[in-house]
Amino acid sequence: MKHILTPMILAAALVALPASADESTILDPAIKAQAEALMAAGLKDDVGLEFTESLTTEIGPRLAGSDAEWRARQWAMVKLKDLNFQQAYIEDFNIPYWERVTETASVAGDNPQNLAITALGGSKSTAKGGIEAEVVRFTSLADLKAAPADALKGRIAFIDERMVRAQDGSGYGYAVAKRGGCAQAAADLGAVACLIRSVGTDSHRMPHTGGMSREGALGALPAAALATPDADQLARLLERGAVKVKLNIQVKAADSAASGNVIAEVEGASLKDEIVLIACHLDSWDLGTGAIDDAAGCGIVVAAAKLIQDLPLKPKRTIRVVLYGSEEVGLYGGKAYGEAHADELESHVLVAESDFGAGRVWRLTTGFGDGAMAYAKAMQVLVAPLGIVPGDNSSKGASDVSVLGNLGVPAISPDQEGTDYFDLHHTPDDTFDKIDPAAFRQNVATYAALTYLAAETGWDFRKAAKPEMTDR
Amino acid sequence: MKHILTPMILAAALVALPASADESTILDPAIKAQAEALMAAGLKDDVGLEFTESLTTEIGPRLAGSDAEWRARQWAMVKLKDLNFQQAYIEDFNIPYWERVTETASVAGDNPQNLAITALGGSKSTAKGGIEAEVVRFTSLADLKAAPADALKGRIAFIDERMVRAQDGSGYGYAVAKRGGCAQAAADLGAVACLIRSVGTDSHRMPHTGGMSREGALGALPAAALATPDADQLARLLERGAVKVKLNIQVKAADSAASGNVIAEVEGASLKDEIVLIACHLDSWDLGTGAIDDAAGCGIVVAAAKLIQDLPLKPKRTIRVVLYGSEEVGLYGGKAYGEAHADELESHVLVAESDFGAGRVWRLTTGFGDGAMAYAKAMQVLVAPLGIVPGDNSSKGASDVSVLGNLGVPAISPDQEGTDYFDLHHTPDDTFDKIDPAAFRQNVATYAALTYLAAETGWDFRKAAKPEMTDR
Repeated sequence: MKHILTPMILAAALVALPASADESTILDPAIKAQAEALMAAGLKDDVGLEFTESLTTEIGPRLAGSDAEWRARQWAMVKLKDLNFQQAYIEDFNIPYWERVTETASVAGDNPQNLAITALGGSKSTAKGGIEAEVVRFTSLADLKAAPADALKGRIAFIDERMVRAQDGSGYGYAVAKRGGCAQAAADLGAVACLIRSVGTDSHRMPHTGGMSREGALGALPAAALATPDADQLARLLERGAVKVKLNIQVKAADSAASGNVIAEVEGASLKDEIVLIACHLDSWDLGTGAIDDAAGCGIVVAAAKLIQDLPLKPKRTIRVVLYGSEEVGLYGGKAYGEAHADELESHVLVAESDFGAGRVWRLTTGFGDGAMAYAKAMQVLVAPLGIVPGDNSSKGASDVSVLGNLGVPAISPDQEGTDYFDLHHTPDDTFDKIDPAAFRQNVATYAALTYLAAETGWDFRKAAKPEMTDR
Repeated sequence: MKHILTPMILAAALVALPASADESTILDPAIKAQAEALMAAGLKDDVGLEFTESLTTEIGPRLAGSDAEWRARQWAMVKLKDLNFQQAYIEDFNIPYWERVTETASVAGDNPQNLAITALGGSKSTAKGGIEAEVVRFTSLADLKAAPADALKGRIAFIDERMVRAQDGSGYGYAVAKRGGCAQAAADLGAVACLIRSVGTDSHRMPHTGGMSREGALGALPAAALATPDADQLARLLERGAVKVKLNIQVKAADSAASGNVIAEVEGASLKDEIVLIACHLDSWDLGTGAIDDAAGCGIVVAAAKLIQDLPLKPKRTIRVVLYGSEEVGLYGGKAYGEAHADELESHVLVAESDFGAGRVWRLTTGFGDGAMAYAKAMQVLVAPLGIVPGDNSSKGASDVSVLGNLGVPAISPDQEGTDYFDLHHTPDDTFDKIDPAAFRQNVATYAALTYLAAETGWDFRKAAKPEMTDR
C-alpha cells in the first residue's frame, strides 16, 4: 500500500488515533449514538425492500449491455431522484456483448430424454440445428487438462465436479474454475463442446449460468452448465456405457454494447472531496430477475445512504453510492470506474460492496492499514449488537470495488450468511420472493451505521503502523 | 357395498373372524412372524430403489400414450422377468393423446420479461406465433365463474389461488379444481386463454403441469400454469396497472394412442383365484423423470411382491402387481383394468396403490366392511413398529385402484408423508435424487408385510357387521 500525503489525508490525520487509544475511547459518543440510531432505523427500513421489489418487478432480468440494463439505469435515475439524493448521474462505458438465443440438450439414441442446461456467458453457438457427440466425463478441470491428446477429439467434455456448501461461499472460488476453464481446456484437446455440472449447491433442475474465460464476447467453444439432477442423470447413464448428447446452443454476440454505472451522492458537509463508496451491481444474469444478485445489494446500499441523507446534519465526508453495470460479465463497471477515477483513488477513504445476496451479515471483515486496526475494532464493536462477529483484515472489498481494494483503497466486507446463496445464484430462481425482509433490514442497518461512521469520523483507514519502525 | 356369495368368499369365510376376537388373537403367530421378517427385509431392500433408479434413468419421462411410455412397458417386462415373477404380461388399451411442443409466455410492453409457464395437459394451441391479451386476475375458480358476462372477452383469465401445504396432501383436492376448471369457465366468459398459479407448494420457477377437464384430447382453451415466483410477479405487475401477456402454446393431439397396464403375479398356493392387488402407475408427466410420481410407487410394490415371491412357501392368495398406464391423463389404466376385469371384481380381496411419492408411511387407512375392522386393527398393530399410526376406514385406494375401491373392493391406503410432495409434483424437479432411500425402504417393508398378511390369512375384508342386525 503506497501513501501520498494529499491534503485530504492530512486533514484526516488531524483526527487520527492516538497510539494508546482503544475502541472504547476512539469513537466519539455523539457519533456512536447517531450510528446506533441509524442501526435502529435500518432494522425498520422499507426503502431498500421497495427499491429491490421495484427493480426486480418492473425491469426484471438485466443482462449486461442489454436494453433491459439500459432501462434499469433509467429506472434507477428516476428512483434516486425520487429519493432526493443530491446528485445522481450515469458514467457510460462499453462492453463486449453476449446473449443466449436458444439452448437445448438431450440424450441421443434409443431412449431420448431432455437435459436441463443453460449456456455459459461467452459460449459459442453450435452448428445450426445442433451437434451430436459422445460425452467424456472428468471429475475436475485438472482431470480434463490431464487427458491424453486425442481423448476428446470430436467429443464433448463433461466436468462433473460438485461444489461444497459453506456459510461464507468459500466453495465458489474452487468450483468456479471449471466454469471459467472448461471450454479452453476442452478446445485444446480437440473437443467440440464443454458441459459442466452447475456451479451451485441446489438439487433443482435449474442450471446455473455464469461467465467463462473469454477474450471479447466469445470463449473457445459452445459451453453449458447442466442442472444438478441432469448432471446426476448423465453420470448414471455414463456408468451404463457410451452416451451421445445432442447440443444446440445459439447465441448472439457483438464487439461493443453500451453499459454504465449509476451513481448517487450524499455530499459531505466539510470533507466533501473524501469519498466513502458503497456499492452493488445493477446488471444481472438473464435467467432470473437478479433479486439476490444483486438487486438486494442495491436496495441495501441505497437504503443505507438514504437514511444518512435524511439526517438533519450531513456527515463530513461524501457518501457515493455506485450501482455498477456489467459486473457479471467481467467486472466491467468496476474497471471502468477505476479507470475514470484513477486520479482520485486517494480521495476514496473506504469502499464496500454488497453482492452476496440478502442473508444477514454475520461477520465484519476489514482491509485497513496496520495502523488503523483500532478503527476496525471500533466498527466491529459498533455492529456486534446486530449479531455480527469480527473478521480478519484481509478484505479487498467484494466484486466491483475489489478493483479499488486491489489498488490499495481501504475496504470493508460485511460478510453475509451465504449457506443457501449458491442454491439460487445465476439461476431462474433468483427472484424477489427469496429475500427475507428481516435479514435484508439487518444489512441496511449494518451499512447505514458503518457508512455513517466512516463518513463522520474522518478516520484514516489507510493508516500504516509506525512506518518509521517497519520501514527499517 | 354389495356382496355376492361366490365360492371364493365362502372359502374366505372359513377363516373369518369370530365375533369376540381382537387383533391380538386373530393373527396366526406364524403369519405374524413371517410378516415381521418381511418388514425387516424390506428395510434393507435394494430391489425397489434399483427398479426406480433404472426406470427414471434409462427411460426418463414417460408421457401417457407416448413412445417413451411404450418403451417403459417393454423395459418393465424385461425387469419383471429378470426378477423371476411367475407371470408378467401387458393389457393394452387406447387413450386420447396430447403432448406439448412449445410453450412460452412473456409480459408484453415496454419492460418485456419472460414468465415461466407450462401448458396443462389438454391445453389447446394458441394461434401460431402466439397471442397477446390483457390479463384479468381472479382469486379462485369461483371468483372467475362469478365474473360479469363480458369481463373476459378477448382476455386471459388468471386464477391466482395458493395451495395449502399439508402432511396428507389434503390441500390438493381443493387447489386442483382451478386446474381442471379454469379453461372451460374462462371460455364460457369469452376468454382466449387461461393461466393459473401452479398447483404446488414450492417457490421455484418450476411450473406444475397436470391434467385439465377435457373431452378427448383437448380442453376448452389454451391453458398453462405459472411457476409460483412468476404468479407472484404477474400479481405484482397487475397491482401497478394493466398487463398484457404474450402466450405461445403449441401442442400435438390425437384421438387415439396406445397405452397399457403391465402386470406381474405371484401365484397363490391354495387360493390362486383370489387376488391381492398392489399397484402404481408407470406413466409420468413429461417434465421430470417421474421419480416420485410414480416410479417410486412401482419400485415399492414390485420390491414388496419380490420379497414375497422369494419366500420358500408362497402365500395362499395370488398377489397381482399392476403397473398402470396413463394414470396422469385420466386414470385410463385404472378404468381399462376395471372394464377388462369387471367379471372378477369379487376375486379382488384387497387393493392398494402407492402413488404419493416416497415419503415414509405415517398412517394406515383402511376401507373394509364394518365386520372386518378387527382385520384393520390387526394390520395397524402389525405395522406400528414402522412408525405408522392407525387411520380411519374411509379408504377407496389411491389413484387407479380407486376405480375398484369405488366398486366396493376393499382397499388400504398406506398414507405417505407428503408435506413436501407438492413441491415436486408434476414439475421438472421430479427426479431420482429427491428420493430418501430410508423412507423408500420403510414403504417396501409396509407393503411387503401387509400384502403378505392379506394373501396368507385368507381374511374377508368385505365382511359386513352382523347384517341380520343392521338390515332391520
